[in-house]
Amino acid sequence: MSDRSDFTSEKYPELDSGPRILLGPGPSMVHPRVLRAMAAPLVGHLDPYFLKIMDRTQDLLRHVFQTKNQLTIPISGTGSAAMEAAVANFIEPGDSVLVCINGYFGHRLTDMAQRYGGEVVTINRSWGEVFTPEEVKEALVAHKAKVVAIVHAETSTGAKQPLGEIAEVVHDQGGILIVDAVTSLGGVPVRVDEIGIDVCYSGTQKCLSVPPGLGPITVSPRAEEILSKRKTTVPNWYLDLSMVQKYWGTERTYHHTAPISSNYALYEGLRLIAQEGLENRWERHRRNAQLLWEGLEELGLSLHVPKEFRLEPLTTVRVPDGVDDIKISMQLLKDFNIEIAGGLGELKGKVWRIGLMGYSSRAENVLLLLTALERVLGKQ
Amino acid sequence: MSDRSDFTSEKYPELDSGPRILLGPGPSMVHPRVLRAMAAPLVGHLDPYFLKIMDRTQDLLRHVFQTKNQLTIPISGTGSAAMEAAVANFIEPGDSVLVCINGYFGHRLTDMAQRYGGEVVTINRSWGEVFTPEEVKEALVAHKAKVVAIVHAETSTGAKQPLGEIAEVVHDQGGILIVDAVTSLGGVPVRVDEIGIDVCYSGTQKCLSVPPGLGPITVSPRAEEILSKRKTTVPNWYLDLSMVQKYWGTERTYHHTAPISSNYALYEGLRLIAQEGLENRWERHRRNAQLLWEGLEELGLSLHVPKEFRLEPLTTVRVPDGVDDIKISMQLLKDFNIEIAGGLGELKGKVWRIGLMGYSSRAENVLLLLTALERVLGKQ
Repeated sequence: MSDRSDFTSEKYPELDSGPRILLGPGPSMVHPRVLRAMAAPLVGHLDPYFLKIMDRTQDLLRHVFQTKNQLTIPISGTGSAAMEAAVANFIEPGDSVLVCINGYFGHRLTDMAQRYGGEVVTINRSWGEVFTPEEVKEALVAHKAKVVAIVHAETSTGAKQPLGEIAEVVHDQGGILIVDAVTSLGGVPVRVDEIGIDVCYSGTQKCLSVPPGLGPITVSPRAEEILSKRKTTVPNWYLDLSMVQKYWGTERTYHHTAPISSNYALYEGLRLIAQEGLENRWERHRRNAQLLWEGLEELGLSLHVPKEFRLEPLTTVRVPDGVDDIKISMQLLKDFNIEIAGGLGELKGKVWRIGLMGYSSRAENVLLLLTALERVLGKQ
Repeated sequence: MSDRSDFTSEKYPELDSGPRILLGPGPSMVHPRVLRAMAAPLVGHLDPYFLKIMDRTQDLLRHVFQTKNQLTIPISGTGSAAMEAAVANFIEPGDSVLVCINGYFGHRLTDMAQRYGGEVVTINRSWGEVFTPEEVKEALVAHKAKVVAIVHAETSTGAKQPLGEIAEVVHDQGGILIVDAVTSLGGVPVRVDEIGIDVCYSGTQKCLSVPPGLGPITVSPRAEEILSKRKTTVPNWYLDLSMVQKYWGTERTYHHTAPISSNYALYEGLRLIAQEGLENRWERHRRNAQLLWEGLEELGLSLHVPKEFRLEPLTTVRVPDGVDDIKISMQLLKDFNIEIAGGLGELKGKVWRIGLMGYSSRAENVLLLLTALERVLGKQ
């Protein structure tokens, strides 16, 4: 176990990961400037310089979330940790919760809500469909809920949930709205304040195009008040927002050692977004998605989600009868270094998932994928 | 909020963090090879190449932990997340838990254990002291405990807890032993199998000298069995080892998107350790700590912990009467770009904490710190 000769460079060679073109459900490709930020020498987590970067990052995060929420921070874990932060802090044992399930991440929200003692009621739609405000209202009238959770951008289905009116319905019924924006933030509009979302979270490795490891979250004043009135301690120490915000707020009280490099990368990624302009970025995602959709249809493939509800950063395309989905995606990886993904859960074996997120959303990537896909499908 | 002109490069300038010499309680400095690994282009979290890196990283982690434990993985959060993984997975509501508190992190373990429903009994020692096996045994005879938690290297006090016999005492009394090795792993021997530690966790940003963001953990077969016999679901989704291990094990079931870049960096950091040789690395930490201790005493300063229990990677040195501790550490940062830290909790204002961890543990850093410290103390 401690014999040095076991650790030869043959068994443990240096990193050599190859030039992958990442067109799956995330991580997306990362801009060279963000990669350089990852490699910057470190400072301490209470260094005056790092505190400045924290403040600036919070400002820039508020911009992408389109919010004035004070409590807007990156959780020190992936998007799933941010999801859990939303659930752990806003659901107390016995709280009634409504989860809208139309894909994998609705199920995950349900699993988490139950672990935190929520009395969960669900409404369900087929994978690829979305909910109407009326359906949410009906469910809330039947079962009053303190918390309603819904996924804006279902990475498992490629459906984009319209959010207008839903927050209003939830608020009218006395609840708060948690929105999963993991695959939408930075790629499609997520207007937290305008819509009235109370808790919204995301991940860095999708449309923000920053390596995975942080989970941005924003909390409305209304939800902050609920937090301050909790009857029980948040049962999750690492994600307890009352403590985490004392580090990100003016107190600067040590909680855990912030991932310095990942925060540097997030700062740089957010600077890139501000420089491109958020509206321009949304338009780029829309334009490249459109190019992809047209190209896929020209190849004779069917898109799983009706155009009206299609999510620009993540497209689900049906696997033609008789085609082995995994064989095709492995071939794309092997022959052309292109990553796309298969379906999850209900859609396993039925769709491929193609991501055009952040720095991956480029016309040249779309063209390359279409021609590569045509070639490997032709070989079947 | 969405006005682009707000995002000037004046308000959000490019990263420029300065050449900090990190001699605080972590993060430690990072080797250029590890920084380069942070900047490597990404692959997907299920890419065949990344799966290979995961396997190799697990091998190399087993080496630094000196264990054959199958379940040896990096948690996708900082050392505190790894601590919480240990607590969340091995303590069920109503379980009796003994926590040995002789510093800040013993208190944190107690806080976490209570959040997970543990019936916590504590034994206490002054900050800077350590426990004897007899004390642990006495406590266990008085209060049988399923889980005993102890800190190997108290980052808040600079004390190193001898672990020999303690595991035996715990096992004789029918319990399992959780050991916090956040500040020891990679800097001083942590012989998991030889000592008989059941659950041992660490962080990447201390003696492994990898940026903060991952928390290595290893679980003995005995503890794995306890995990498999839990009566309740782990109330923490993100840190539920039964799910996490299905991604790191042979199933490769998606759980959350692994922080690719951080794992690349960990792999490179662990390669550096294997190439240096673990024993050589421990000896380097010992030699540089010795140099520091002698130098501090030559400056007329007193070390807080008796030599016998002194932790090589983290030294606590008493603030002389009439000296403003914060003023001195700010001066070191301002004039010489050197970071050291003040005391935490009981030791606030009473000690400085000087870290010589991983790539920071170099003779030139010791000499520079001593001469800089002499100068700023002389100026008082």
